[in-house]
Amino acid sequence: MDIVIIGTGNVAAVLGQKFKDAGHHIIQVAGRNAVAANELAYKLGSGFTNNLSQIKKNAELYLVAVNDAAIAEVIRDLSLPGKVIAHTAGAVSKDVLKPVSSHYGVFYPLQSLRKEMTVIPEIPILLDASDETAKSILETLAKSISSGKVSVANEENRMKTHVAAVIVSNFTNHLYALAEDYCRKENIDFSQLVPLIEETAMRIRSTPPAKAQTGPAIRNDKSTIEKHLQLLENHPHLKKLYGILTESIITNKG
Amino acid sequence: MDIVIIGTGNVAAVLGQKFKDAGHHIIQVAGRNAVAANELAYKLGSGFTNNLSQIKKNAELYLVAVNDAAIAEVIRDLSLPGKVIAHTAGAVSKDVLKPVSSHYGVFYPLQSLRKEMTVIPEIPILLDASDETAKSILETLAKSISSGKVSVANEENRMKTHVAAVIVSNFTNHLYALAEDYCRKENIDFSQLVPLIEETAMRIRSTPPAKAQTGPAIRNDKSTIEKHLQLLENHPHLKKLYGILTESIITNKG
Repeated sequence: MDIVIIGTGNVAAVLGQKFKDAGHHIIQVAGRNAVAANELAYKLGSGFTNNLSQIKKNAELYLVAVNDAAIAEVIRDLSLPGKVIAHTAGAVSKDVLKPVSSHYGVFYPLQSLRKEMTVIPEIPILLDASDETAKSILETLAKSISSGKVSVANEENRMKTHVAAVIVSNFTNHLYALAEDYCRKENIDFSQLVPLIEETAMRIRSTPPAKAQTGPAIRNDKSTIEKHLQLLENHPHLKKLYGILTESIITNKG
Repeated sequence: MDIVIIGTGNVAAVLGQKFKDAGHHIIQVAGRNAVAANELAYKLGSGFTNNLSQIKKNAELYLVAVNDAAIAEVIRDLSLPGKVIAHTAGAVSKDVLKPVSSHYGVFYPLQSLRKEMTVIPEIPILLDASDETAKSILETLAKSISSGKVSVANEENRMKTHVAAVIVSNFTNHLYALAEDYCRKENIDFSQLVPLIEETAMRIRSTPPAKAQTGPAIRNDKSTIEKHLQLLENHPHLKKLYGILTESIITNKG
């Protein structure tokens, strides 16, 4: 499939590489930053432009992989009648692309992607499309690159999935960051906790998280909880979150 | 090393198996529940008793692997002069064991252990000891079984590590459980999120979590946050936590 990628960030870079590895042809990378566009284009063996008016018109698919807030601006002067165009955002309606073509949709990778990745993880893809033409192209592309699930999700389902992704990824990462900060301030070696973090995440494949809950809160072990709150005395923000999450476990159990 | 294990739960079962695999000799499993003690003893090729007055006196190490709250009761009538005794609890002082022997300590596995595990993960061990005799035995044992770090941690350091473990493991698992519950109620396939959960956890080995933070909160993307809060309208508890954790990310960033 001949593809033009609009965007040069993490999602553009990782998906671009996956497309190339699957035998697709990236004919052009378009980005506002010429250096970044050139760099990604070099990796993908494609041409590049930093001027959207010079976008190549002979691709089958135009993938807009830019920040949510930038999508509307990037496609403002774009007209690609007869072509398929899709964006990669979980929380943006596909209809923002309607002015560009009648064949539009969403190609949302449900994964946290970074340019620096050496091993690319499993990437489930959630698709949405305005019509059968767009759906067929996006489904073919998704199946060619994804080792994970490919599913069709309408706007509401995709956005709900995005909410859940924020909870299990952004919020858990924030807890890791708060714990690391606490360890640094208290001279504790945070790296000791890494195997536990991994085991907690990996266990989900075998045990539903509600059944895997352990720790003082689920046992309602008030004496340990009290000791922990004392050890957090100099960390008021973390202490407050500890209380809120402990209470949440106690009241939501079973 | 000849070892008596007191307890029959997850920690007793997994550590017992690790000891056996490392060539140690479990001479007895002692537990209040005779069926459970017999079952674990059978797996470990040892004798068993459900009567602590019949505990064998010829082991080098007595490991008390029972719930925090049960430790004091289990060792109440125990006297093992000259022997080394240790418990496995992160949040319990080693001094609870003082009446049993002058050689006592803690052997705290910093991992979430379950009997059903087929692959036993890396287990960092935090040790504490009343004297050199106890320290030497516990250190030898820890190094013989652990693929992870073995370190000596005093009571305060161990308890602080336990606080951090609760944050990165119990609280994150609770977020997984809340997200799964949300997905079930909203007809979203939670299993799609598993690769993202794993990637978020595994990334810590290469990127400090504070630098890996992504999502609407760290971008202070109010429009997406507002959409998410609307999608949580029928889930008031989760909506409240979403607001608290989003605010926490916004105010603690960088």
